Amino acid sequence: MEKTAGEIAEILGGTVQGDLNAKVKALNSFELAGPGDLTFAGSKKYLEKLDSTNATCVLVGEDYDGKTKKTLVKVKNPKEAFVIVLTAIHKKRKKPPNIHKTAIIDPTVKIGKDVYIGPYVIIEEDVVIGDATQIYAGSFIGAETKIGTGTTIYSNVSIYPDIKIGNRVIINSGARIGADGFGFYEKESVQYKIPQTGDVVIEDDVEIGANDTIDRATFGSTIIGQGSKLDDMVHIAHNCILKKNVIICGQSGVAGSTVIEDNVIIGAQAGIKDHIRLGKRGVVGAKAAVKEDVKPGEYVLGHPAMEAHSMARHWAAQFRLTKRAKTLVELARREEENKKEKAEAKG
Amino acid sequence: MEKTAGEIAEILGGTVQGDLNAKVKALNSFELAGPGDLTFAGSKKYLEKLDSTNATCVLVGEDYDGKTKKTLVKVKNPKEAFVIVLTAIHKKRKKPPNIHKTAIIDPTVKIGKDVYIGPYVIIEEDVVIGDATQIYAGSFIGAETKIGTGTTIYSNVSIYPDIKIGNRVIINSGARIGADGFGFYEKESVQYKIPQTGDVVIEDDVEIGANDTIDRATFGSTIIGQGSKLDDMVHIAHNCILKKNVIICGQSGVAGSTVIEDNVIIGAQAGIKDHIRLGKRGVVGAKAAVKEDVKPGEYVLGHPAMEAHSMARHWAAQFRLTKRAKTLVELARREEENKKEKAEAKG
Amino acid sequence: MEKTAGEIAEILGGTVQGDLNAKVKALNSFELAGPGDLTFAGSKKYLEKLDSTNATCVLVGEDYDGKTKKTLVKVKNPKEAFVIVLTAIHKKRKKPPNIHKTAIIDPTVKIGKDVYIGPYVIIEEDVVIGDATQIYAGSFIGAETKIGTGTTIYSNVSIYPDIKIGNRVIINSGARIGADGFGFYEKESVQYKIPQTGDVVIEDDVEIGANDTIDRATFGSTIIGQGSKLDDMVHIAHNCILKKNVIICGQSGVAGSTVIEDNVIIGAQAGIKDHIRLGKRGVVGAKAAVKEDVKPGEYVLGHPAMEAHSMARHWAAQFRLTKRAKTLVELARREEENKKEKAEAKG
Repeated sequence: MEKTAGEIAEILGGTVQGDLNAKVKALNSFELAGPGDLTFAGSKKYLEKLDSTNATCVLVGEDYDGKTKKTLVKVKNPKEAFVIVLTAIHKKRKKPPNIHKTAIIDPTVKIGKDVYIGPYVIIEEDVVIGDATQIYAGSFIGAETKIGTGTTIYSNVSIYPDIKIGNRVIINSGARIGADGFGFYEKESVQYKIPQTGDVVIEDDVEIGANDTIDRATFGSTIIGQGSKLDDMVHIAHNCILKKNVIICGQSGVAGSTVIEDNVIIGAQAGIKDHIRLGKRGVVGAKAAVKEDVKPGEYVLGHPAMEAHSMARHWAAQFRLTKRAKTLVELARREEENKKEKAEAKG
Repeated sequence: MEKTAGEIAEILGGTVQGDLNAKVKALNSFELAGPGDLTFAGSKKYLEKLDSTNATCVLVGEDYDGKTKKTLVKVKNPKEAFVIVLTAIHKKRKKPPNIHKTAIIDPTVKIGKDVYIGPYVIIEEDVVIGDATQIYAGSFIGAETKIGTGTTIYSNVSIYPDIKIGNRVIINSGARIGADGFGFYEKESVQYKIPQTGDVVIEDDVEIGANDTIDRATFGSTIIGQGSKLDDMVHIAHNCILKKNVIICGQSGVAGSTVIEDNVIIGAQAGIKDHIRLGKRGVVGAKAAVKEDVKPGEYVLGHPAMEAHSMARHWAAQFRLTKRAKTLVELARREEENKKEKAEAKG
Repeated sequence: MEKTAGEIAEILGGTVQGDLNAKVKALNSFELAGPGDLTFAGSKKYLEKLDSTNATCVLVGEDYDGKTKKTLVKVKNPKEAFVIVLTAIHKKRKKPPNIHKTAIIDPTVKIGKDVYIGPYVIIEEDVVIGDATQIYAGSFIGAETKIGTGTTIYSNVSIYPDIKIGNRVIINSGARIGADGFGFYEKESVQYKIPQTGDVVIEDDVEIGANDTIDRATFGSTIIGQGSKLDDMVHIAHNCILKKNVIICGQSGVAGSTVIEDNVIIGAQAGIKDHIRLGKRGVVGAKAAVKEDVKPGEYVLGHPAMEAHSMARHWAAQFRLTKRAKTLVELARREEENKKEKAEAKG
């Protein structure tokens, strides 16, 4: 791309402060940008150091009125505007439609139009693959699995049999979808496997991270709801239900049969107990150990997790107390001795 | 299957309350069951809401004497009975014996009877594979590895060279067995690799989860003992010894040279320090940070972990204290001032 | 190997106490060693029980003057000496140079001398591979990736396009390098993907663990600096910068844009917040939740993490307080009642 600040402002419905003809060739972050780059200042922190970026042109909010030598394009929402331009110009590495001659595809498989199937892919019997779906090298698709349209499955993914995957889903390398849920029955010290008869349903527009593991249900379905986004190494146990637009950061895990409502956000390395419910727009802090339901909109933290403000107060109070631990222990000891003496005097 | 309540009772050695001829076609969980399904009520919680399931027939304990419109089959242990029936009727996706023509198998490899080796499997020199073992597409078996009979290795697994795998083992997709233990020697700020010369031994009836990593020993063996079950994304470091029937839930990790005795249960996302010992039937709570030995039968919790009841009391006491933090800090401050005044008066 | 104690002493520049002609055939750990083995006693703990090892010969420090029936070789640094001998004799499973006929290599790929490329490897357009590099079966190398000399990529690894990998790097099975960073923009409850336009740079002498995930940068590079060693299942998010010789133990994760200086050591299952900095030779304890910068040389622990000695004191003080919780709560309640009475008397 090569556009002037004026042209960018026109596309984004914004206005220019500075050089209308300043030329922009690429986008970059505030810190890494150089001459010829467009960046954005999305918060006070960045607006205060506008002159420190080497970008030629900066997207700022329309109400910004500071002085700077930079050329600014003022828009309603600078971060959103930046993402829109970036998405428009980003060169996507889409594979041209092709079915590689080394892909081993059972004759019963139904394949849509414009599909890419890479080398050494294996697709078992009765699989259905929608139009414009892309399956990269070395991935394995088990029997009876259904995959929608416009979905991308990167290299070396394993999909166990009988899984349902929607449209425009992205599954990153090394994800394992549909291994048996972790269910055993103990008898005389020996663990016997409980058959896992259910499946996994991944709805439209979901993104699954690299090396994620999503187990099949004991009965029914483990469900990853529409628009949900999972970071790398996330584990979803059997029978969990994620509703819409759930965000789960790296290395977090959700134990069996838990329900996560729309737009919940779970930080990294958090653990969610089995059989609980996280209400709409609930937020779980990184590394939290969530053992109880989370109310809609509630933000929880800590181990065991509790409402974030209470937890912050609890943590702060702990420090105030332990700073005076010596005196407090002394007071308690004296009180205990007094009591004992009184008791003995009475006795 | 299609059986009457009477026939099920006969098979399980139980008795029927209700319609002897009620027809059952499938099994399902209490909540998901519909007409024609058999389910079970294994605890008071479910017995109290027996009429809420849509199942046609419910397995209950033989001493249950409540009133219900449901047809009941009364048995000694309803959960066990349910698992027995489920295991009997569950359609296992066993592969018919076959060695796929694209599997690359070194001529020195010894293969038993009725073995399945899928497409694009690689098996290096001097590997031995027992009867009825199944190795799915894209898995890699390193040189000199021995695999027993009736074992299943799912797709895209990596077995490094010189690993011993027993009979009836299940290894889920993406597991990595035998990567080097994490051992380095620092000299002048640079880390030098310590050769990892040992192996991994996986005994009979073990289940390894998807994307697990089990490292080879520095010397000797990392051992996963008979009947142990590992959930997904579990990490076992070099030289760990798991004895029999150990259960480890998802995303937990065990550091080097730790010994875990029979029937220990480790919850999800727990971390176990190196060079310690978890005694028989010890239990580690989810997300616990275990830094010391666990006694036989002991249940530990928290970070750092301690005996569960003590930890629960400690947590509860913390909350009672922080609720009164303001007053306690005031008392301590007053005491400290008094002391100071006395000291000054003396001085 | 077969060497006498005298020969070993000569090689290592040490001296023998005991039988100069004692024959050593192999190396082993102190506990596992048997007759004919060489081991080492690197600390007081082992020196005190020298006679308990079955090794024929033990490396000890040059100032050791205890009595023992064992043959000793006294050297400056027994652990280092042991690693040197072990490294020298350890049979490395290097593949002979070969490009397997089933490897699918784009005609534009440039391959150096003495390279091993295993079966079913896929290498896309414009990749460059240096001399003596080894790529094992089933690995996927995306377009435009550059790999240096003497590097080993084990089986079933996925390298996304446009990644830079240095010399003498080891990448273990199942690692995923260059998946998109986890970046989304929310608008009207829906998450839109922020394009991840950057790359990953893995410098010389790095070791990447099995099933690690290292995400590409949003802009610029995610960097794993020279000599850094990552254990299994480590997650490095977009735009992180690891400088030289960083050690990260199993299942730890680093969130986006965090900078980790030279020789930092991170214990297992630790979580590091985004956009912070860990100073040179900082140490993070296992399972720590690091939410703030770590100073050079500082050792942090806990959740949330703080300086280790302060954390240890804080933990200890908490236990002293909760042991007396009953008395302290009573004292606080009495104080609160007194205050209330006084206030009422005044009113």
